[in-house]
Amino acid sequence: MIPRYESAELAAIFSDRRRMQLWRDVELAVVRAMTDAGELKSSEVAPLFTHEVEIDDDFVARVLAREAVTNHDLAAFVDVLQADYDTPAARFIHFGLTSSDIVDTALSLQIVAAMELLLDGVDHLLATLRSQSLRYRRTAMLGRTHGMAAEPTTFGAKLALWTLALDRERTRLVRAREQIAVGKLSGAVGTYSNIAPALEATALSSLGLDPAPATQVIGRDRHAEVIMALASTAAMIESCALEIRHLARSEVMEVQEPFAPGQKGSSAMPHKRNPILSERLCGMARLARGFVVPALEDISLWHERDISHSSVERMMVPDAFQLVFYMVTRFDRLVADLVVHEESMARNLANTHGLIYSQSLLLAMVRTGLDRDEAYRIVQEATTRVLAGEGELGDLLTKDERCPLPALMIEELTSIDRLLANLDPLFGRLTTLEGSRWNSNS
Amino acid sequence: MIPRYESAELAAIFSDRRRMQLWRDVELAVVRAMTDAGELKSSEVAPLFTHEVEIDDDFVARVLAREAVTNHDLAAFVDVLQADYDTPAARFIHFGLTSSDIVDTALSLQIVAAMELLLDGVDHLLATLRSQSLRYRRTAMLGRTHGMAAEPTTFGAKLALWTLALDRERTRLVRAREQIAVGKLSGAVGTYSNIAPALEATALSSLGLDPAPATQVIGRDRHAEVIMALASTAAMIESCALEIRHLARSEVMEVQEPFAPGQKGSSAMPHKRNPILSERLCGMARLARGFVVPALEDISLWHERDISHSSVERMMVPDAFQLVFYMVTRFDRLVADLVVHEESMARNLANTHGLIYSQSLLLAMVRTGLDRDEAYRIVQEATTRVLAGEGELGDLLTKDERCPLPALMIEELTSIDRLLANLDPLFGRLTTLEGSRWNSNS
Amino acid sequence: MIPRYESAELAAIFSDRRRMQLWRDVELAVVRAMTDAGELKSSEVAPLFTHEVEIDDDFVARVLAREAVTNHDLAAFVDVLQADYDTPAARFIHFGLTSSDIVDTALSLQIVAAMELLLDGVDHLLATLRSQSLRYRRTAMLGRTHGMAAEPTTFGAKLALWTLALDRERTRLVRAREQIAVGKLSGAVGTYSNIAPALEATALSSLGLDPAPATQVIGRDRHAEVIMALASTAAMIESCALEIRHLARSEVMEVQEPFAPGQKGSSAMPHKRNPILSERLCGMARLARGFVVPALEDISLWHERDISHSSVERMMVPDAFQLVFYMVTRFDRLVADLVVHEESMARNLANTHGLIYSQSLLLAMVRTGLDRDEAYRIVQEATTRVLAGEGELGDLLTKDERCPLPALMIEELTSIDRLLANLDPLFGRLTTLEGSRWNSNS
Amino acid sequence: MIPRYESAELAAIFSDRRRMQLWRDVELAVVRAMTDAGELKSSEVAPLFTHEVEIDDDFVARVLAREAVTNHDLAAFVDVLQADYDTPAARFIHFGLTSSDIVDTALSLQIVAAMELLLDGVDHLLATLRSQSLRYRRTAMLGRTHGMAAEPTTFGAKLALWTLALDRERTRLVRAREQIAVGKLSGAVGTYSNIAPALEATALSSLGLDPAPATQVIGRDRHAEVIMALASTAAMIESCALEIRHLARSEVMEVQEPFAPGQKGSSAMPHKRNPILSERLCGMARLARGFVVPALEDISLWHERDISHSSVERMMVPDAFQLVFYMVTRFDRLVADLVVHEESMARNLANTHGLIYSQSLLLAMVRTGLDRDEAYRIVQEATTRVLAGEGELGDLLTKDERCPLPALMIEELTSIDRLLANLDPLFGRLTTLEGSRWNSNS
Repeated sequence: MIPRYESAELAAIFSDRRRMQLWRDVELAVVRAMTDAGELKSSEVAPLFTHEVEIDDDFVARVLAREAVTNHDLAAFVDVLQADYDTPAARFIHFGLTSSDIVDTALSLQIVAAMELLLDGVDHLLATLRSQSLRYRRTAMLGRTHGMAAEPTTFGAKLALWTLALDRERTRLVRAREQIAVGKLSGAVGTYSNIAPALEATALSSLGLDPAPATQVIGRDRHAEVIMALASTAAMIESCALEIRHLARSEVMEVQEPFAPGQKGSSAMPHKRNPILSERLCGMARLARGFVVPALEDISLWHERDISHSSVERMMVPDAFQLVFYMVTRFDRLVADLVVHEESMARNLANTHGLIYSQSLLLAMVRTGLDRDEAYRIVQEATTRVLAGEGELGDLLTKDERCPLPALMIEELTSIDRLLANLDPLFGRLTTLEGSRWNSNS
Repeated sequence: MIPRYESAELAAIFSDRRRMQLWRDVELAVVRAMTDAGELKSSEVAPLFTHEVEIDDDFVARVLAREAVTNHDLAAFVDVLQADYDTPAARFIHFGLTSSDIVDTALSLQIVAAMELLLDGVDHLLATLRSQSLRYRRTAMLGRTHGMAAEPTTFGAKLALWTLALDRERTRLVRAREQIAVGKLSGAVGTYSNIAPALEATALSSLGLDPAPATQVIGRDRHAEVIMALASTAAMIESCALEIRHLARSEVMEVQEPFAPGQKGSSAMPHKRNPILSERLCGMARLARGFVVPALEDISLWHERDISHSSVERMMVPDAFQLVFYMVTRFDRLVADLVVHEESMARNLANTHGLIYSQSLLLAMVRTGLDRDEAYRIVQEATTRVLAGEGELGDLLTKDERCPLPALMIEELTSIDRLLANLDPLFGRLTTLEGSRWNSNS
Repeated sequence: MIPRYESAELAAIFSDRRRMQLWRDVELAVVRAMTDAGELKSSEVAPLFTHEVEIDDDFVARVLAREAVTNHDLAAFVDVLQADYDTPAARFIHFGLTSSDIVDTALSLQIVAAMELLLDGVDHLLATLRSQSLRYRRTAMLGRTHGMAAEPTTFGAKLALWTLALDRERTRLVRAREQIAVGKLSGAVGTYSNIAPALEATALSSLGLDPAPATQVIGRDRHAEVIMALASTAAMIESCALEIRHLARSEVMEVQEPFAPGQKGSSAMPHKRNPILSERLCGMARLARGFVVPALEDISLWHERDISHSSVERMMVPDAFQLVFYMVTRFDRLVADLVVHEESMARNLANTHGLIYSQSLLLAMVRTGLDRDEAYRIVQEATTRVLAGEGELGDLLTKDERCPLPALMIEELTSIDRLLANLDPLFGRLTTLEGSRWNSNS
Repeated sequence: MIPRYESAELAAIFSDRRRMQLWRDVELAVVRAMTDAGELKSSEVAPLFTHEVEIDDDFVARVLAREAVTNHDLAAFVDVLQADYDTPAARFIHFGLTSSDIVDTALSLQIVAAMELLLDGVDHLLATLRSQSLRYRRTAMLGRTHGMAAEPTTFGAKLALWTLALDRERTRLVRAREQIAVGKLSGAVGTYSNIAPALEATALSSLGLDPAPATQVIGRDRHAEVIMALASTAAMIESCALEIRHLARSEVMEVQEPFAPGQKGSSAMPHKRNPILSERLCGMARLARGFVVPALEDISLWHERDISHSSVERMMVPDAFQLVFYMVTRFDRLVADLVVHEESMARNLANTHGLIYSQSLLLAMVRTGLDRDEAYRIVQEATTRVLAGEGELGDLLTKDERCPLPALMIEELTSIDRLLANLDPLFGRLTTLEGSRWNSNS
């Protein structure tokens, strides 16, 4: 990931150093489990625990140097770790294991850690969204379909739908985390040829993981589920960011991204205030989407494994998390600081000159006994005149002899409040979410 | 979908006719709910239920003709349905609804039906796999990593892993079905402007669906989850098909696709028996994978909706189900009828000349106190000689002075049975699955 | 492809019947070439040419029935064709050839035919675009970046850029056609084991194709190039359709899709006139994009070939052409019939209250010697006041003491004509294209 | 790009520093062009050229610090550059330009430079491939289709096809370079509002670029073509790497990746020598493929531009080049150092027991007058017996009464040399390429 979009915390999780620390942790967890099971004597392996070898930058450098000889990263790591321990006990490190036992188990630990960080961000975003949703629950604005005026909604209702949608993404992320919270220590082809299944269970449990049925490696459908959940979350934020871009258009101007003093919207045109963060989030979702393809291709490995997935994962896993973490945290701040022009929302509603009531008027006409298609054509004709600037829809229909509705009823029907009277259950859904899950974290 | 790969049952689910039948069902469910709620009088709408309009091919043709005028499919449908009912009661059809209320709800019903059909297929496949897995649980064969001999496994173990992997896909499909088993009747922009939320709940419940918070449309993340679950299932079957192709290679010849009398493997070369079904399944997974991209792009609609997702779904949804259903059912038959050459498996194991024991021998040497790296080099050297045709690994090490292991121990260590002694828990996992879920269906 | 979006001409090109006709043509071309080369005697093969076997629907049905036995489509075809000829000469059909010689060569012929049809459509679209571009070359409208008012452009300039962009896509399509206008008759593994290279050249030349170096099959990078050119063309039309959707928004209303009498924009809201065709085109581009993934995956076949690409191509190739052909022809009609509201364009320009001149004013201030950053801040401040509704940008700066520009110069600078004075070369580029290529076809 | 796979040369091309150097070069090219055109006086701008501001790491750091204020990278750059020049002349930097004039033009220069570097690598690879192809032109080996023995080919023929295929990719890369070797200086919405078209031509020409018709930005179809050419090249190398993996399988063992002294094939199994580089190349192609999706999505920008493409390109462009450059250069070394086991190739051919002659024998039988289907069944039957271990195909047919061929003819037909007699023209194609293009570079 380029520095511009990188989270230092995530970068640490996916650093060489953290990876090797986790490799060491897994190796030692197995030695411990073997000792507990009586396969090794405590006295034999004690030196490995009296003082742990520290995995610092120098250690990492020596492993990379050793890898230049072995052309195998985990083998290089084992060589250096055993050498650093400098005790005969060290020969029990990696005993009965294959590289993937260590590498795959540690990768799961990295992904779980990254997912926890991301879920914290999602929880915070959900709290922000819910709070803004309630703040604007009665702020009426134009609802639009096909980019055209439809019927009114409220800005809070829009935000409530975003909240619920992102809560669905949260569920996908949580499920993906469960799916990947597994390790494997079952050896070269997953048959426990040189290690007992019970021992795997003990060692993994001490690391917080469940045992996965495996070949040499853990099934890549699990990793693909993680990437798909990330891509779906990215697509959902993209969808919200796209909405902000639309609402920020010059001709709509209902919201604006915050604009700091000193900021320049354009190097050429001093009048510009552009929704550049929202645009950036849309771009990032494209990249996240692109990662689904290699993630799904990785599932088909040869026989008990080939290593083609490894180069993919070295780049894709950190990059996909970095992208989505950036999107979640920046979008959170954007929602919190969004400039909302309620007066523009009111103005745009008024500018429809009553078109937003066309369905209500149609239905009332049908209620009186008019044929639906006939009523449709009468209202459609009137709306054409509204678009031509000839007046308000209610007025034109009041004067239309074919319209059976009395003036008073037309007046009652052309009311925004009437159209927004049924929104409470939607906000009620937010309350349900509140206590049970993410509110406590925010 | 082209006829070659098409399931008639699925095609019926996604036919114009079935779609319009579901449209009618949804329209009538709303009228019924309105009547139950007292919004309409029973007497007023009775004619709609005394004899239902039949949706046959002629009806479909008239809707398509009408669509040529309205340029709107659902509006054309409502026009024709109301005309066919030929009663004033017909004006209460589509009362207070927007097209997407009907279209999206019916689409969910189609997808749920398709998913049920697919899950039946998956359950049957799981039963076949489990049964074959147990049949071959002790059939030893070479495990391979990187395409190279590694350690032994059994053919049954391989099949057990496929079973468990496809059971994970089943879980994804089931979750996707839950996610899509929703409808919406909340009107033009999802605000219940002309219909009460309680009425939506009643009507949807009669159709077996839950209400979804919605804009004009149901969130497309739900449909994307369906497509991703399908693509993941396809990728998993691809992975199994790829394995069959590898095992069927001339030089391996451990399995073969069944070959019928009269079949021609090649128009030119009479000797050919090719794994063409497995190859076809691999190709199909590519197409399924390609659908994830548009499915994720569909999530970002404008404001309360635009209709760009519709053309995508008209093609993608049926095609993705058809592809995966074909893959599941044909793979099922392939697994059931697979020709398994156990003697080839034994021969290929023997042809490794003991290389498969290299880790066991290494570990035993380390146990005696040898440094791991030193032991590694001794065994590695011996394996090079094996590859050069100089003999069996055990024999060479027995004669190697640097090897501290007594001949008898080497003999004990070079045993396939010893390497396969720990497989029972894997098959035990199959038993757990058995009762609870899919066995009952098969 | 579903009937809704299907071109009958393209469907014919990709029908079973046409495919088998081409198979026959290729088979006979080889017999003819062998006879010309003296490898077969004229008398021996004469019966094959005195009356050609007709490939009609009945023939197709018999091949499909035969395929149920052979499980090999081309082998079934050869069996039926030879039987239908009912002459000993028939045994020289498919002599020395492998299935892929016929299948791949015929597929190239199908793709070339489909590409010709598509290019005719593209040429017609280019002519429409150029003509509309010149029609609106002086119709000033607001240029927008980031969805925000920027500087003026003309509607004709926008269309000119579309024309040039689609001309680039045309170039890609033409190159892809060249790449795929190849056949191969080099046998089972491409070594000309049973046919002479010269014979391949003669036979292919009679079919209008060049010989391709090949394994058993033609390299799938060629087919991928076709799919990529189609996806790129689709993406470009998507980009134009997206622009139309933006310009058709309620608040912008600068263009509209044509709306026929009797049309219904919404089943619920009679006032709606939605840009549904443009939205549909955007959706279709997503599907086209999704096909690039399987097309690129198809390139990696095993050894001299496996058949995994075949199921992909059976669906992808016709569907990708159908999609893009639909997009090109419908977009053509849309551009021709587009409703252009020049008065809205003028109004939206006026509504910027001079913001569109911010850069011109900035530059003039810099010219007088002001520091760029200082000038930027002065103008930026004034634009903020414009956005707050305090007046026209020129007026505010005229009154601003820090602005060194005399009132007259400000008046000269705030002229739309001045900003549009340099557009002629752009339209000149259209003229260059005109004669040389596509105008002659339209 | 992670350090593990990164080329320092490419990283330099895409570094912040190089980008800002190019930004400066473009800015100054415009000032120079304006001076040449008489729009600025030489004396007025002379200080900008007497000593150029150096763009070093400190400069970059100051721009990034300034960007924290402006929230606009190019505006920050202009501010710092003008300040560093510390002369009134500096106000003519960026005069009449918009950010994208600089950013897009510089991006083209970066891509052209990266493409040059990549094409050098491709040329070298082509030379290596051609040379190895000629070296092994007569090394007979088994050709395989569907993973099954087909007919013989030579290892050189295989390599010749790779060479020709990669030469096609080279053509795609060259065309993409031409497509992207363009700049634009036409201002905020591409209308040359504040700069003359002629001036753009002069300035770009001095940078080696052509002017592109543009909105605010250069059309992203050009960048997409670059990414598609990279992905196609990656897919082609993947296809070759896949072949190496197949040929290196334990049971085939016809080639091996070079294995250095000290290398460890596995941390657990000392006998392993795995084709890990080839596997890695396959993984990388998946990532390259994934980039095509965002590249195509980037084409659809809003109106005269939005900036959603920018975040995509910041990551995608360098990463895609790094991936493919790594693939090309490592694959080059792999081909050069590949261990080729000619004796295994001979053994695997012999192990087919004559199956490879089945077509030749079939054709000869047809020649004698036998019906094709009848002959097919006779040979097919014999091949089944061969596969059952009953002997050589030629012998079995010699003894088969139904086979009309005399023993001597069968002997003549069962000759590898006969099957490989027509390969010269394929190698001839390499010679044609040789002089004209890449040989001179290697």
